[in-house]
Amino acid sequence: MKSGEKVLLAHGGGGRLTEELIEEVFIPAFSNDTLNQLGDSARLPHAPPDYSIALTTDSYVVQPPFFPGGDIGRLAVCGTVNDLAMVGAQPKFLTCGMILEEGFTMDDLKRVVASMAEAAEQAGVNLVAGDTKVVPHGSADKIFINTSGVGWIPKGRTPDVKKIQAGDAIIISGTIGDHGTVVMATRENLGIHVELKSDTAPLNGLVEALFDGGVEVHAMRDPTRGGLAQTLCEMAKASGLHIDLKEDALPVRSEVTAIADILGLDILQIANEGKLVAFVPKRDAEKALRICQAQPLGCDAAIIGRVSDTGDSMVALQTRFGGNRIVEQPMGELLPRIC
Amino acid sequence: MKSGEKVLLAHGGGGRLTEELIEEVFIPAFSNDTLNQLGDSARLPHAPPDYSIALTTDSYVVQPPFFPGGDIGRLAVCGTVNDLAMVGAQPKFLTCGMILEEGFTMDDLKRVVASMAEAAEQAGVNLVAGDTKVVPHGSADKIFINTSGVGWIPKGRTPDVKKIQAGDAIIISGTIGDHGTVVMATRENLGIHVELKSDTAPLNGLVEALFDGGVEVHAMRDPTRGGLAQTLCEMAKASGLHIDLKEDALPVRSEVTAIADILGLDILQIANEGKLVAFVPKRDAEKALRICQAQPLGCDAAIIGRVSDTGDSMVALQTRFGGNRIVEQPMGELLPRIC
Repeated sequence: MKSGEKVLLAHGGGGRLTEELIEEVFIPAFSNDTLNQLGDSARLPHAPPDYSIALTTDSYVVQPPFFPGGDIGRLAVCGTVNDLAMVGAQPKFLTCGMILEEGFTMDDLKRVVASMAEAAEQAGVNLVAGDTKVVPHGSADKIFINTSGVGWIPKGRTPDVKKIQAGDAIIISGTIGDHGTVVMATRENLGIHVELKSDTAPLNGLVEALFDGGVEVHAMRDPTRGGLAQTLCEMAKASGLHIDLKEDALPVRSEVTAIADILGLDILQIANEGKLVAFVPKRDAEKALRICQAQPLGCDAAIIGRVSDTGDSMVALQTRFGGNRIVEQPMGELLPRIC
Repeated sequence: MKSGEKVLLAHGGGGRLTEELIEEVFIPAFSNDTLNQLGDSARLPHAPPDYSIALTTDSYVVQPPFFPGGDIGRLAVCGTVNDLAMVGAQPKFLTCGMILEEGFTMDDLKRVVASMAEAAEQAGVNLVAGDTKVVPHGSADKIFINTSGVGWIPKGRTPDVKKIQAGDAIIISGTIGDHGTVVMATRENLGIHVELKSDTAPLNGLVEALFDGGVEVHAMRDPTRGGLAQTLCEMAKASGLHIDLKEDALPVRSEVTAIADILGLDILQIANEGKLVAFVPKRDAEKALRICQAQPLGCDAAIIGRVSDTGDSMVALQTRFGGNRIVEQPMGELLPRIC
C-alpha cells in the first residue's frame, strides 16, 4: 500500500485486493494466533468454569471520524469494551466489521486501525475476527465500524438495575459531556481553541478496581448516547425508584459548559465515552469514591446523587440555585452521529 | 409505529424513540429471555465441555436490499450462520448492528426484521444483542447490517484447509452463481422474467448431516464474494495442492448462464449465499454426495473436481470442449455490494 493510495471497491470484493488489505493493513496491526488463522470463524478458548460469558455489539458512525482525543477506531474498541465491563465482564475478544466508502484514504484507514490496536492493547483484548466491505462513493460517509465483543464474568458479579435500592449512592467516574461536546465542536467547526478532548477510554480497569476493592456494585452503566439523563431515566424506570441529583456535585469542565451554552445543549444529555455511573450501597460510597479517584480514569469521580423510594420513577435535579427540575428522557434527535 | 412512518435520526439517538423502535420492532420479532433483558451485554450459557467455541462477524451492504429469494436481513443471518457452520460449529447466538439511513421506511425495516427472525428460526439461532444507528439522508444507502455469531463446535470436528490431501474429491452442494446473478439482474433492472432466486440459506443443517453421516470432511468453505474461483484459489494456495475442476460437472442453472453472458460475468466468480464446497477423501465422496442430495438444500449437489499434487497450487478447469484453462483469483472489482 503506497502513501496516497485510496480504498477501491475491489478492496471489499473478497478477491486479491481484499487479501492485500488484510495482509498489509489489518494483520500487522492486530496480529495474534487466533486472528492469523483467517478462517471463516475464530476459535476461542473456553471461559473458566467459574465465569459466565457476555456478548455485545455496537456500530460506530461518528462524524467526523477523527476528533481531539480519539477517532472512530478508538471509539469502536472502547465502546464495546465498556458495554462488556458494565455487566462486570472482563473483555477478552473483539470482532471488527468495517464499511468503507470508496475513496477513503489508505493513510486514514491505517490511522484508524493503529488507533484500534492501541486501544485494544490498553483494554487487554484481542481482535480475533474481521470483515471489510467497500461501498461506492456517496453510499456511505467515509467509515463505519461495528465491533462485537466477548467477555468473561467472574462468579458473583451480577450488577443489575433490579438490585438498585433506596439509599444507594450514585457515583460518576469523572467529568461529564466531554466526548459529545468535543465532537460537536469539531463538527460545527466552532474554531474555539480549547484543551478539551474526548474522554474515549476503556473502563474495564476501573471496574476491576471497584470489584477488587470489595465494593458491592448494585448496578453500572456507561452514559453514552443520550448522556447521563438517558441512563439515569432508564435506571429509575427499571428500578421503580426515584433519583435525586445535585447539580453542584456534577463534575463538568468549564469548556464543556461554555460550548454547551453556545450550542444550546443540555450537558446531562451529552454523550460520554469513558465514564461510568455506579449505584452502590451507602456504606460503600466513600470507599468506591476513593477507589475511583485513585485510578487515572477516575480522578474526577464524585458522588452525584442518591436513590429514594418516593413512589415515582423520576430523576430530579436539585439546581445550583436550590430549585428542583425533573430530568426528562431525551427524545434522541439532538446529537446525531455522536458515536 | 404507524404505516408510512419513516426512520428518523432520533431513532438512533439512544433516547425515547430508540426505546420505541426496540420495543415495537425488534423485541416482538426476536423475543427471547437473553435479548429481553436489554442489558449492555447479553449473558450466554457456557458451551458444554466437549465443545469448542467459534466467533465470527460480517457486515452486509447488498444493493438492492430486497431481491428475489431474499433480502439483506435473510442474508445477514444466513451469511454469519454459514461462516460458523464452515468451521464445523453449531450456530447458537447472533448479534445485530444496524446502520439505517434517515428516511428508510419503517415498513421496509419491519420486513427486513421479519426476514431475519424467520432465517434465525430456520437456522436455530437466537439473536441476543443488538444496536441501531441512524445517519442523515445521503450518509448511507438505506440499510447496512452487521451480524456477529457465536457457535459451538462438537469435539473432533476440525475441518481445516491444511487437511486437504491429494486425491480428495471436491463436492459443491448445489447450483452456482444464483445469488450474485439475481442481485445483479435486479440492480441492472434487466427486465428478464425469470424464476431465478437467490440461494441465500443457512447451511448448518447440511453440515450436521455430513458429520452425522460419518463423512471425514477435510475442509469446507462457502463460496460467497469472489465465488467458487476465489474460494478454490485460496484453498489451493493454502494447501499447496493443485485442483482440477470439470466444467461439465458444475451445476449451473440455464438462467444464470444466460444472464452471466449478458452481463459479461464469469460464473465461477459469482457469489453464492447458500452453497458449500467440501473436500472429502475419495472413499467418502459418494457417501457425502448422497447425504447432500438427500437434503433440500443439497439436491443439486455434485462432485466437481479433485485434488492432486502436481507441485503447483493452481486451479485448472477442464472445459466442456476438452480444453484447459487456469482459474484466476478475481481481483474483486466486478461485483460490488453483492452481499
